[in-house]
Amino acid sequence: MAVMLKKKMKTFLIAKSRRLRGTPYTSRIEKQGVTAYTIYNHMLLPAAFGSVEDAYHHLKEHVQIWDVAAERQVEISGKDSAKLVQLMTCRDLSKSKDGRCYYCPIIDDNAGLINDPVVLRLNENRWWVSLADSDVILFAKGLAIGNKFDVKISEPDVDIMAVQGPKSFKLMEKVFGEKIVNLKFFGFDYFEFGGDKHLIAKSGWSKQGGYEIYMEHNESGLKLYDHLFKIGKEFNIRPGGPNLIERIESGLLSHGNDMDNGDNPYECGFDKYVNIDSDVDFLGKEKLKKIKAEGIKKKLMGVKIDAKEISVNGSMDLVDEDNNVIGELRSGCYNPSFKQVIGIAMINKPHFETSKSFKININGSDFDGKVCDLPFI
Amino acid sequence: MAVMLKKKMKTFLIAKSRRLRGTPYTSRIEKQGVTAYTIYNHMLLPAAFGSVEDAYHHLKEHVQIWDVAAERQVEISGKDSAKLVQLMTCRDLSKSKDGRCYYCPIIDDNAGLINDPVVLRLNENRWWVSLADSDVILFAKGLAIGNKFDVKISEPDVDIMAVQGPKSFKLMEKVFGEKIVNLKFFGFDYFEFGGDKHLIAKSGWSKQGGYEIYMEHNESGLKLYDHLFKIGKEFNIRPGGPNLIERIESGLLSHGNDMDNGDNPYECGFDKYVNIDSDVDFLGKEKLKKIKAEGIKKKLMGVKIDAKEISVNGSMDLVDEDNNVIGELRSGCYNPSFKQVIGIAMINKPHFETSKSFKININGSDFDGKVCDLPFI
Repeated sequence: MAVMLKKKMKTFLIAKSRRLRGTPYTSRIEKQGVTAYTIYNHMLLPAAFGSVEDAYHHLKEHVQIWDVAAERQVEISGKDSAKLVQLMTCRDLSKSKDGRCYYCPIIDDNAGLINDPVVLRLNENRWWVSLADSDVILFAKGLAIGNKFDVKISEPDVDIMAVQGPKSFKLMEKVFGEKIVNLKFFGFDYFEFGGDKHLIAKSGWSKQGGYEIYMEHNESGLKLYDHLFKIGKEFNIRPGGPNLIERIESGLLSHGNDMDNGDNPYECGFDKYVNIDSDVDFLGKEKLKKIKAEGIKKKLMGVKIDAKEISVNGSMDLVDEDNNVIGELRSGCYNPSFKQVIGIAMINKPHFETSKSFKININGSDFDGKVCDLPFI
Repeated sequence: MAVMLKKKMKTFLIAKSRRLRGTPYTSRIEKQGVTAYTIYNHMLLPAAFGSVEDAYHHLKEHVQIWDVAAERQVEISGKDSAKLVQLMTCRDLSKSKDGRCYYCPIIDDNAGLINDPVVLRLNENRWWVSLADSDVILFAKGLAIGNKFDVKISEPDVDIMAVQGPKSFKLMEKVFGEKIVNLKFFGFDYFEFGGDKHLIAKSGWSKQGGYEIYMEHNESGLKLYDHLFKIGKEFNIRPGGPNLIERIESGLLSHGNDMDNGDNPYECGFDKYVNIDSDVDFLGKEKLKKIKAEGIKKKLMGVKIDAKEISVNGSMDLVDEDNNVIGELRSGCYNPSFKQVIGIAMINKPHFETSKSFKININGSDFDGKVCDLPFI
């Protein structure tokens, strides 16, 4: 049975500054009722507009516009750009195509994860690395300088606006026509609005379907933002942001939360993006071969906990009946569909078989939980 | 005359997660009344315990303990460690000594600032780079891999606790004896408490004097934290954090706020840390020679604004009487000693002479201001 916590979770304000900068859409979402931010790539990323649970139900049924400008791009161009991008990821990009997005774990020479971006191939000599939260631009610059690569590396003025939810297709069709509905998943193309061409990908950080608009033109971007809200009324449009409940339920991993530099791609279930048998050169390749041969010692798994509330601010130990640590919870929240807390945990060998039971201490009380497979649904 | 703003500034909550992780001291400061955080190197850094103005007055008179664990260390060790550290900074470290701290701008090959850490030379083959807010570890790894340097690079478990304010000397003497009072500014040494040795530097991110304790031992660190509060009652001890009012008044620059990768060290007044005439090799050296020969086109200066309130969340334009932009405000706050807003701005050539007048729009109203030298006092 799920048990309520006695103490109310404390809340804290965010101290804003230029170092945690806003986006072109910040003034709009603040008028629209954003209540909480997280920080992502030194920028404000909306985390809540009131209830996260309400937003979860809405996202699964309607359409939301998200200010995800914090998903910054590293642009790598020039003669050696393909070589540098390939050096940073264990995914074989030798057969990659223009106009496609690729989910690419970025690792260091010890096979530790540095980021898990989506890489956009604009063309053979120009790439965007669309980042999770870490300064990959510094890694790219260091590698380029040290290897004397002929590349140009920059953070372009690109601010992503995401359109997410099952009604996003109808909404976007109203603006951009049928062509945008026929875009393949993880494909991108250029679409006109307000006199400018915009790169739009069929992608986004939810499993509810939708698009990411890589906005390079502030003025027409803001016009499009307002236009979407105007014509989106019939689809019950709302502002939003990546939703903790939905992303955990859908098994979408978050770099820095679920995995970090202490973890390798095999431990995170990225096996299909680890191409150690390819001919391409990338950092950590020999180390990955060794890890594969020896087998992993920990693995990301789902967990279900008989609790009604949790706030995960750091790793939380999961222990067995003898109080031995069997793993650590890295993300988690109450899920109204499961009517319990579900989360993502790094489970130690040999405990990563399904259905292992554990206990977890939340705010001074013990709760029961079970390990399960990912994704949850 | 200073004018009050009509609208109240909106406030927003911070959405906590493992990605914005806490420190060993977080649970203590939350009991002690922290009200706002900023995020720094992916960690929680306390920004306020209630009124920042009260904390400012207190800091200038008494002593505060700051949880500044977010000032992360990059440890660089091994045969080529000195070479790598030198490659990253324009400051000549060839005559550096063990047991000393060095303020070192880190720049890329285009002389753009990446960070402005304090570098601690533990010994010739082991260095700590004590960071401002950016992932310098990724830059160091990239450079080391590309250059095939024989180094080991890691983020050690070091959590800094700062003791700041004029009474910090008396307080620390009570714990560590006279030796700690005689430590030179920016010198460090090892001191015993709770059975462990702790690296303590006479340093800190205020101009009120004090120490930074580089805590490697959690258990004795927490004991010391509690002990300092117990014996510090006679000095009116309080928890705190870097204080926006004090740091601006003292002219302490903040990377990401006052300067970033678009600025070079000369533009930030770091001339004495730019050793282009030295024999050492560092990134951006040729570019810096060119910048010096041509002269800078913008410069960090102080500004005073006839306003009672401001919230700087991004660059804010400063314009002259003809509405031409003369520079941008990057940090600022109301200062109760000056009885007006003071701030740090990047002023364009030829306007960086002292006493240039400007106007700035704050929340829809225009305010008058003047450029001045740094520091303010």
